Amino acid sequence: MVVTLIYGSAALAMLTAAFYARRVVSVPIEGDNPQQVAKFNEISGAIAEGAMAFLSREYRYVAGFVAFFAVLMYLLLDNDATIDHHEGMFSALAFLLGAVTSSLSAFLGMKIATMGNVRTTIRARKGLSEAFKVAFESGSVMGFGLVGLAIVGLMSIVLVFGQYIKEQELLMEMVAGFGLGGSAVALFGRVGGGIYTKAADVGADLVGKVEQGIPEDDPRNPAVIADNVGDNVGDIAGMGADLFGSCAEATCAALLIGATSAAIVGSDSSLYYPIIISAVGVPVCFFTALFARLKADATSAEPVLKKQLWISTVLMSIVMIFVTKAAMVETFEIHGQIITNNGVLISLLSGLWAGLLIGVVTEYYTSHAYKPVREVADASQSGPGTNIIYGLALGYKSSVIPVIAIAVTVYVSWTLAGMYGIAIAALGMISTIATGLTIDAYGPVSDNAGGIAEMSELGPEVRRRTDLLDAAGNTTAAIGKGFAIGSAVLTALALFSAFLVRSNMHSLDLLSPLVFSGLLIGGVLPFLFTAQTMKGVGIAAYAMIDEVRRQFREKPGILTGHDRPDYKTCVSISTEAAIKQMIAPGILVLATPLVVGYIFGTQALAGVLAGSLVSGLVMALSASNSGGAWDNAKKYIETGKLGGKGSDAHKAAVVGDTVGDPFKDTSGPSINILMKLMAILSLVFAPFFVQHGGVILKFLDMK
Amino acid sequence: MVVTLIYGSAALAMLTAAFYARRVVSVPIEGDNPQQVAKFNEISGAIAEGAMAFLSREYRYVAGFVAFFAVLMYLLLDNDATIDHHEGMFSALAFLLGAVTSSLSAFLGMKIATMGNVRTTIRARKGLSEAFKVAFESGSVMGFGLVGLAIVGLMSIVLVFGQYIKEQELLMEMVAGFGLGGSAVALFGRVGGGIYTKAADVGADLVGKVEQGIPEDDPRNPAVIADNVGDNVGDIAGMGADLFGSCAEATCAALLIGATSAAIVGSDSSLYYPIIISAVGVPVCFFTALFARLKADATSAEPVLKKQLWISTVLMSIVMIFVTKAAMVETFEIHGQIITNNGVLISLLSGLWAGLLIGVVTEYYTSHAYKPVREVADASQSGPGTNIIYGLALGYKSSVIPVIAIAVTVYVSWTLAGMYGIAIAALGMISTIATGLTIDAYGPVSDNAGGIAEMSELGPEVRRRTDLLDAAGNTTAAIGKGFAIGSAVLTALALFSAFLVRSNMHSLDLLSPLVFSGLLIGGVLPFLFTAQTMKGVGIAAYAMIDEVRRQFREKPGILTGHDRPDYKTCVSISTEAAIKQMIAPGILVLATPLVVGYIFGTQALAGVLAGSLVSGLVMALSASNSGGAWDNAKKYIETGKLGGKGSDAHKAAVVGDTVGDPFKDTSGPSINILMKLMAILSLVFAPFFVQHGGVILKFLDMK
Repeated sequence: MVVTLIYGSAALAMLTAAFYARRVVSVPIEGDNPQQVAKFNEISGAIAEGAMAFLSREYRYVAGFVAFFAVLMYLLLDNDATIDHHEGMFSALAFLLGAVTSSLSAFLGMKIATMGNVRTTIRARKGLSEAFKVAFESGSVMGFGLVGLAIVGLMSIVLVFGQYIKEQELLMEMVAGFGLGGSAVALFGRVGGGIYTKAADVGADLVGKVEQGIPEDDPRNPAVIADNVGDNVGDIAGMGADLFGSCAEATCAALLIGATSAAIVGSDSSLYYPIIISAVGVPVCFFTALFARLKADATSAEPVLKKQLWISTVLMSIVMIFVTKAAMVETFEIHGQIITNNGVLISLLSGLWAGLLIGVVTEYYTSHAYKPVREVADASQSGPGTNIIYGLALGYKSSVIPVIAIAVTVYVSWTLAGMYGIAIAALGMISTIATGLTIDAYGPVSDNAGGIAEMSELGPEVRRRTDLLDAAGNTTAAIGKGFAIGSAVLTALALFSAFLVRSNMHSLDLLSPLVFSGLLIGGVLPFLFTAQTMKGVGIAAYAMIDEVRRQFREKPGILTGHDRPDYKTCVSISTEAAIKQMIAPGILVLATPLVVGYIFGTQALAGVLAGSLVSGLVMALSASNSGGAWDNAKKYIETGKLGGKGSDAHKAAVVGDTVGDPFKDTSGPSINILMKLMAILSLVFAPFFVQHGGVILKFLDMK
Repeated sequence: MVVTLIYGSAALAMLTAAFYARRVVSVPIEGDNPQQVAKFNEISGAIAEGAMAFLSREYRYVAGFVAFFAVLMYLLLDNDATIDHHEGMFSALAFLLGAVTSSLSAFLGMKIATMGNVRTTIRARKGLSEAFKVAFESGSVMGFGLVGLAIVGLMSIVLVFGQYIKEQELLMEMVAGFGLGGSAVALFGRVGGGIYTKAADVGADLVGKVEQGIPEDDPRNPAVIADNVGDNVGDIAGMGADLFGSCAEATCAALLIGATSAAIVGSDSSLYYPIIISAVGVPVCFFTALFARLKADATSAEPVLKKQLWISTVLMSIVMIFVTKAAMVETFEIHGQIITNNGVLISLLSGLWAGLLIGVVTEYYTSHAYKPVREVADASQSGPGTNIIYGLALGYKSSVIPVIAIAVTVYVSWTLAGMYGIAIAALGMISTIATGLTIDAYGPVSDNAGGIAEMSELGPEVRRRTDLLDAAGNTTAAIGKGFAIGSAVLTALALFSAFLVRSNMHSLDLLSPLVFSGLLIGGVLPFLFTAQTMKGVGIAAYAMIDEVRRQFREKPGILTGHDRPDYKTCVSISTEAAIKQMIAPGILVLATPLVVGYIFGTQALAGVLAGSLVSGLVMALSASNSGGAWDNAKKYIETGKLGGKGSDAHKAAVVGDTVGDPFKDTSGPSINILMKLMAILSLVFAPFFVQHGGVILKFLDMK
């Protein structure tokens, strides 16, 4: 019965996605004349082709990596002959399935986004409401499709593995590989995609806008297609894989911790409660989407999108009160702590509302409707130096309330429902993920739509409409990142707890040299990772700048409109550079837990994980918000304030935006992956560390 | 006997300081003609006057604050009638003495620096060696004077209080107030002084150099005196108070932890071992100073200064091997751990050499002789945006090895000698503080000397010499900051341990909701603090910019040299703004431990302290190093590379330098104070928290 309902919800999600996809695709590519139609097809074709080129190249590496890692898991974890203990084999299988599912959702999201963008442009010729609808529905395909796939994947693996592994705790340990698979793909999506998008963006801007003075998205810019591809690669495929990872990992952590309680194992609906949360989110988000309507005379799309978050949060809260009462056993025990279903409910709600609070705070700090961004804009009048100082300070300060919100959520859920509570809080925060992803994917679709309108030289009225849609994108992107970071931290913390449970650590004394040293080292990792990803963008952007300059130099006809720029080379430069520059940060994330666990043991590893959460959370939040604020400070000046476009203040604001680009779209959100991936790696390899880890300590003991 | 030797060492330190002071003062103010002499007197008089004006204003606030806090301590801690338990009274007395001693050393350092600067200029007319000597000896006065005062203060308070308090552990708990006093003054010195110096610097540069195109240190710039005052206020008074605090606090922490061991209490030389370390440093640094000679044909002062660090470290290591064997009991027990004198020695050495390693790494990342800074300079060619990105990435990356060095020091010293070992490691790192401070104070003296040469319009040869002396200042300043940060973290950790000991916490389970939430909140504090101090500089700099612009506008004769600018108003604007802008960060630092301890109790407070160390360490290191690198990238371009002065690359590098100024001279080093002050406040108020703290938990329990 429970399982049927869960599959039913997944089916609803997939049908919704399919329905919206059909609607989007059914918008005909039409124009004033055949030339215009050809132009539409050409541009959107180039973007779609570039996006797929990147994905297919990335997935080749993903495939190699995943195969290697699956073998590693098999070898390191498989150490018993009975079927129940084929840990390595089952974990590796779950890992493969997770990786495939995650890749599939990112692929679908990207596919529909690259079809939705040009159709949004075309509908913008009719009116604002129509264009909004296409952009929003393109986002919905990603949102619902991803949740549907996640639910089906998780539920199926639990059921299939359950045929072979009868002990629930062991079963859930194997299932955790699914989360690792999702997270591993997210590493490529977020880091690689993040470097791709910003290399293209910075390259296009610096040579095109700054050096040559041609407008944004001008078809004469050779990097313009790469730039538009980048929006899809980073904000759609990357974000999707990230949130898929959070959902899968938090569910795995909750399942694993829950399975240690006899009372929970005794009731299917309690055992599957973590999956039920996501399942309930589907109808809630479906209902919420019905309210997404933009009036033809609206002046901003922001209120409509923000209302989506509020509606889904309120609805989800109400529904979960009843569902929790019905699904969860009244009381159960985990590690000696008696937990009530009320405690579980409050944990869920604390996570859910903390997410909304983070969204609201993020909006305050990144929208130019409020004081903080305007202060950054004001500071631009004294030059780029003060713009940077104010932007950095804004980012640091903006992380205070979100951190407090997360700390309170941790305290409340942990006190009321132990480590299970933290996993549930994480799930609560992303329970409305379908809505969140819809809004998030809406951004790059609208951004692309504007680009296509510009490149196809449509009239000012059409561009006004796409600009209006796009304007909401920066803020909603920042809000989406806030959510993603918050849920990543809670997810990482839940995985961290599950790792401790699996390593038989029921306390972790901070007053132990090993743990404290680990904590300090863990604290520096997000900084090193940020340095790597930021410089990665810098190096990749250099390559792009060189290429764009070369084209302008060798073919002067490009600027006069007589020669066609070579978009393809720019696309492949971004692709190559992104893949190459993600190697160092990728190795850092993957190797650290394995090396620390093997050499220094689980205690030191626990310290490292905790340290990386402490500074990673703040780094991620502040980088995202600084970046969002710089971008919007520039946009604020571009509305004609403080001298408007071309003024000194504007030039200073452009510098801030250049710094902010890798901050908000590469480094900041990539820290999510650092935190989660290190934690789930530790969880999955825990039995190996317990048995073989800490070699240096054993060596010192021997002496 | 031991006490006599300690006082003897203090006497040596003070005599050395007095000797060097006499030598510096005895340099006559002479010139080519009476006008020049009058000019020298006028300029140096204005700087000295401005510096003293700031100090006297600052100390008025310090006095008020110290009086208030002493009463608070008395009220909160005094809760018993027997003399042995007049905790509040004795703590408050120790606190007052610490504050007075710290203020006195900063005052003396500033006094001599403002006399040494013009004398360095005058000697530079004769030759390089002579000028170097004056600058170095001015620094030595500060170095030796401060250590002498610290030793006398600490030893005396232990002896005097010992007449009334017979139980050694209790005695040392009272003595800890001395460290708090030193640290409280450092808050004003570092934060207030840091804001002062950068407001003046940024204000002078933006209007004078950038807007009006007049050279650095040009006498026509109304903010030029404030700028020169700032060098003294920030880098001498602030740095001195900071390191005085570290020395006093680390000693207090070691004394307190040591006093819990019966074997240590039984031997005077073991009990006073923490003071002995600083006492041994005096002759070692004295001997080291004899090697400080700059040849007349030298092309850089850097090697001579760096050699000072190496010599003092090697000498100190050798001497301490014998001293430790002689002074420390062979084995003793602290909280069940058996510790040997070898363990203590290794702790000391690990701290000492970690300090040197941090210095070396800092030099690598901040000197333009190496690749990292040159990369930042190269990146400036693509504009200010990439300059900022590369500089930030450099700072983040540069903190990795120092953090590992500290983590290893923590692990080694903690494993071998428990929490006592950490305090000893902290003392080891600053045992050669006299040398460190000498080098550090040398910087602003040379910087001022160059300014005075420029303002007095001396010939190019004199200016070449002062420039050469000053060139070493940026790198040595960065090295000094590295030391200061490293020792601050170890000191804070030692204080943290002492706090735990005093709160009867012998373990701290990270897997408790309260501790983990505290850890997360603690992690965000250095970011918030950085935001406050950075914006403080921004706001103060605005006020300065407005004033300088006003003067140029209202008196056009200033720029043509016909009118004399009004230096005094600029000095008082910096003073006012600095005091005002330090209120918010000051309250954050002072209130957080008191509020958290009172409301959430000692466990949560311990979490907050640990969290602030984790991210504070990295933030402080990366901010200092990014700032140093930006400054030197600019200097590198100014040597004629990449287009030289006036090129686009140079303009971009100037932007980086503007951002780097508050980073390296305000926010970064101020985090030291945040970490240490929060820890020692917790330590001093621990008995209050244990008895009355955690009100909200008690309230929840009642329900």
